[in-house]
Amino acid sequence: MHETYDVIVVGAGHAGCEAAHAAATMGSKVLLITMNMQTIAQMSCNPAMGGVAKGQIVREVDALGGMSGIISDKSMIQFRMLNRSKGPAMWSPRCQSDRNMFANEWRLALEHNANVDFWQDTVSQLLVKHNRVHGVRTDMGLEFKAKAVVLTNGTFLNGRIFIGEKIFGGGRTAERATTGLTEQLVEIGFEAGRMKTGTPPRIDGRSLDYSRMEEQPGDENPGKFSYSTTKPLSTQRSCWITYTNSDVHETLKEGFEKSPMFTGRIKGLGPRYCPSIEDKINRFADKDRHQIFVEPEGWETVEVYVNGFSTSLPEDVQLRALRKIQGFEQAKMFRPGYAVEYDFFPPTQLKHTLETHLVENLFFAGQINGTTGYEEAACQGLIAGINAHQNAHEKDSFTISRSEGYIGVLIDDLITKGTEEPYRMFTSRAEYRTLLRQDNADLRLTERGHTIGLASDSRLQDVQKKKQTIADLMDNIRVTKVKPEEINSWLGDLNSAQLREKSSLYGLIKRPEIGLTEVDYLLQFLPEYEPEVNTETIEQAVIEIKYEDYLNRERTNAEKISKWENLEITADFDYDRLKALSFEGRDKLKKQRPATIGQASRISGVSPSDISILLVYLGR
Amino acid sequence: MHETYDVIVVGAGHAGCEAAHAAATMGSKVLLITMNMQTIAQMSCNPAMGGVAKGQIVREVDALGGMSGIISDKSMIQFRMLNRSKGPAMWSPRCQSDRNMFANEWRLALEHNANVDFWQDTVSQLLVKHNRVHGVRTDMGLEFKAKAVVLTNGTFLNGRIFIGEKIFGGGRTAERATTGLTEQLVEIGFEAGRMKTGTPPRIDGRSLDYSRMEEQPGDENPGKFSYSTTKPLSTQRSCWITYTNSDVHETLKEGFEKSPMFTGRIKGLGPRYCPSIEDKINRFADKDRHQIFVEPEGWETVEVYVNGFSTSLPEDVQLRALRKIQGFEQAKMFRPGYAVEYDFFPPTQLKHTLETHLVENLFFAGQINGTTGYEEAACQGLIAGINAHQNAHEKDSFTISRSEGYIGVLIDDLITKGTEEPYRMFTSRAEYRTLLRQDNADLRLTERGHTIGLASDSRLQDVQKKKQTIADLMDNIRVTKVKPEEINSWLGDLNSAQLREKSSLYGLIKRPEIGLTEVDYLLQFLPEYEPEVNTETIEQAVIEIKYEDYLNRERTNAEKISKWENLEITADFDYDRLKALSFEGRDKLKKQRPATIGQASRISGVSPSDISILLVYLGR
Repeated sequence: MHETYDVIVVGAGHAGCEAAHAAATMGSKVLLITMNMQTIAQMSCNPAMGGVAKGQIVREVDALGGMSGIISDKSMIQFRMLNRSKGPAMWSPRCQSDRNMFANEWRLALEHNANVDFWQDTVSQLLVKHNRVHGVRTDMGLEFKAKAVVLTNGTFLNGRIFIGEKIFGGGRTAERATTGLTEQLVEIGFEAGRMKTGTPPRIDGRSLDYSRMEEQPGDENPGKFSYSTTKPLSTQRSCWITYTNSDVHETLKEGFEKSPMFTGRIKGLGPRYCPSIEDKINRFADKDRHQIFVEPEGWETVEVYVNGFSTSLPEDVQLRALRKIQGFEQAKMFRPGYAVEYDFFPPTQLKHTLETHLVENLFFAGQINGTTGYEEAACQGLIAGINAHQNAHEKDSFTISRSEGYIGVLIDDLITKGTEEPYRMFTSRAEYRTLLRQDNADLRLTERGHTIGLASDSRLQDVQKKKQTIADLMDNIRVTKVKPEEINSWLGDLNSAQLREKSSLYGLIKRPEIGLTEVDYLLQFLPEYEPEVNTETIEQAVIEIKYEDYLNRERTNAEKISKWENLEITADFDYDRLKALSFEGRDKLKKQRPATIGQASRISGVSPSDISILLVYLGR
Repeated sequence: MHETYDVIVVGAGHAGCEAAHAAATMGSKVLLITMNMQTIAQMSCNPAMGGVAKGQIVREVDALGGMSGIISDKSMIQFRMLNRSKGPAMWSPRCQSDRNMFANEWRLALEHNANVDFWQDTVSQLLVKHNRVHGVRTDMGLEFKAKAVVLTNGTFLNGRIFIGEKIFGGGRTAERATTGLTEQLVEIGFEAGRMKTGTPPRIDGRSLDYSRMEEQPGDENPGKFSYSTTKPLSTQRSCWITYTNSDVHETLKEGFEKSPMFTGRIKGLGPRYCPSIEDKINRFADKDRHQIFVEPEGWETVEVYVNGFSTSLPEDVQLRALRKIQGFEQAKMFRPGYAVEYDFFPPTQLKHTLETHLVENLFFAGQINGTTGYEEAACQGLIAGINAHQNAHEKDSFTISRSEGYIGVLIDDLITKGTEEPYRMFTSRAEYRTLLRQDNADLRLTERGHTIGLASDSRLQDVQKKKQTIADLMDNIRVTKVKPEEINSWLGDLNSAQLREKSSLYGLIKRPEIGLTEVDYLLQFLPEYEPEVNTETIEQAVIEIKYEDYLNRERTNAEKISKWENLEITADFDYDRLKALSFEGRDKLKKQRPATIGQASRISGVSPSDISILLVYLGR
């Protein structure tokens, strides 16, 4: 009765929506099955997209032809480029979103894709024959057939919600969990584990005293995520910053004996870098305050998200502690924070395409693979959706390498190293991070996205035009020379060495004391300087010139690391001596005690810079 | 820890939202508890407000100071005044709504009411001591104290969802049911029953062929619900009309043996006037087609609602039958229709204030009282919310009489007659329906709403001004005379009797052959005719004059009925002989065999006109 699909996507969160959109745009007939059509693309946790390393991922998804960037642009209420004061590799776009608009825009985008059908139901079983998936079976008792299936179950597989001593079945507050799928997959031979994540209480913004907090407005000239024609914001909403204090911590500690985290009721490991407030107090006992970001949930709603206060302590403890935060003295909650524990499948069971080794044409994407974060989920959905389409049409698989994008780093990390705790992206995970910048994701990836039929022709043309403009600009910069008398007084003001003879702009731009803002002045010497050239293009050319050396050094470094693959580390190596190692890196090295640098480099949480430090110590 | 509230409202559907808003606006500190803050004011069934008799209720709610009219105006995508061709008592405003906007506007309205707090949780127990309610206990284990509690649980109390042979626990598709409350209330001494309702499948509008359907656009000059300053629509979306046929019916019948309706799995009675398609086929076997309204779910979404096709047959039967409807040949479903069975409490256990007899300060509103319909729920919520506030502040109770409004009719029907099946409002239920028109709800009720502090001062001023304008206009119409030579040729054109001497406009307006559209011409003879006077005001004055006699006759009739209270009906009276009796009326009279006209008049479903027919037959 129902048609046979090319691809069925189970779940409509960030991963599921990208998977469905990608496969459908490439030409697959797609069925998106969601438990509730009213909750498509719900932001389960914070109302925000992007951030450090995550913003780069959104840009990459966009460059490949995914939708997360466009949806974010259409629903944002504030934009900030994080780390502007650091090098361009650290610049990271981040936005606050209107939670309802984000969901609504995603749903409309999918509805307007002629190849996406929808079905509201819960998938409880896969149709598998001869180690190949053929479709799904739902709670309603229906069977839908497809050539490939993408599972994006998020926190719903046997999800359990914890608030103090209370435990509820559920994948998200007020939403049912899914049962059956894990059990079937384990029977097939998959290894499954448990993870946990958490979310802070939601607060009635009317009850807060913002005059006692620090305002955090958006950027003066807000940027955006998508390389396409979306518009930047003209008005923005501010966030607010406040801090916990020792009173807050003491109050929270009163609840520790009822905490599901500390009483052992929660078995799964939580995200190290997005810890609950009780975790932070416990692990960083010497810190007497933690930062709290108070984030509006939308343009008009009074609901606010208390970023930094994720907790599963009893509700009364949450409220008492909250009210000891400056500005929160009269705070009212809409609902308490909670933890959710759920099944995941160690991602070492996947190929680089996100297809499972055990079952052909079956793909996993998002939290089911042990990751955390909307952006991490979205990019996995994209890759799974692309490859589900490719499989369904017997086309070549599509993967991104570690040097092409954060997406490549993420998936390579997952499938080669696995992860014991929710995996989050960091710039430090990418050995080629100076290459993988937010400003050049289109240059890196749009052509690849176009080749497979995902990124549109106009996107490709834009990139080709941009590349040409950048090349022209760089040529111009190389050949344009300035005379000492034209520039020396300006150089003097900057304490930069005087010119003795005509020199190219190229050399001047490379000087470290000449920052990106100073470059503007130099560009005026170009004979054919066109100020109407996109600022992104100029920025691009300047970065390419300015950081050329550093970039080359990084490449050399990367090559070096691959050479030291078999360098031995003694079993009793004293990692505590190396103070420069990252917290997590040291922790992991001490626990896993790798026999070689190669092994060390593949441990989740051991960063490329940790490896460099080891190499230096080992005399290389 | 949490503050003590004046009023706690449990549930945030149409009833709960109106209750919370009313009590809060009157000055109560209100806590609104909902299972999911993302689903406040969800339209569970059709995306529409108003309709015959229901539109009048929305106008009454608005006139009293409730919000349903304003929210409807802000979220509508189409407006039609139904029954324009009939007398003004039958005129009924109806709109199609954007489902998401409706919910969003309600939530924002409540958020912007400083006296409304929110809590996301499920109430599983009432705190009752000495037959008086003191608060609630939630699934999360919290206790909230209040002086009064309003329960608006909708279809969630022990809700069970049926699709063919499948049964799920749930209050709405993909949403949990509530357990515990019914059991506690029964223990206290309440009588509980089961009812059922249903909803049609949701369809992918992209799969329909609208060229094979009949377009139903909105009114050319769309009206609105609220008497306040909301704006009418400038653009509208159309609905579409198509029909079932005998093929459709035959296909549906194939599923009857798996129908939960016919196999006895559903015990509760469903709404007679909003029957499932299988019910219609069964009960009206001679009809070879039924009308289907295809209604868009919002401004942009492709989802459509198939009004007239409510069903709980197996999903495959639903789809096969749907595809035999003209224009639905390629139809794709988003989800199947379903039936939901839930607990209700026979409303004879309530006072006219909607407070329960058994537990002081405990109020019930909406489907928990055995009603069906958003409007029926909203007006009960309003009355319960008002009286919860009044109780909490030891003020006089507030009720609406049968001659003041449909709200009065509804509540009086419920508490004096009870109901065995979901109660829906009809104009025929109101013996004073010529008085209870949609055009005069403000004149009837705003002053009452203002007295208790619900309707704002500006609303009262508007009504007072309107009353004065109408009175002035009517005086003018009475004293203004036209000469035969001024008007006779126009009267001739209308086949209306010629004037022989100067006559007042008043007499001319009363002539039956002079319709409302003709009156415009007559008004030009007014010496001080101000065309800028609101058309609603003119309409009002003209209706008052034109139907004066009919109105008086109705009043006399109503008085007569109350006189015949004790007139006897024989036990073997042959109701089948009275062809003019309503379907439902005859059914109920045959079953209950009342001994007197008074008893007959209080049977749910026996209308005032049924009583008139009986009186005529009995010689009175």
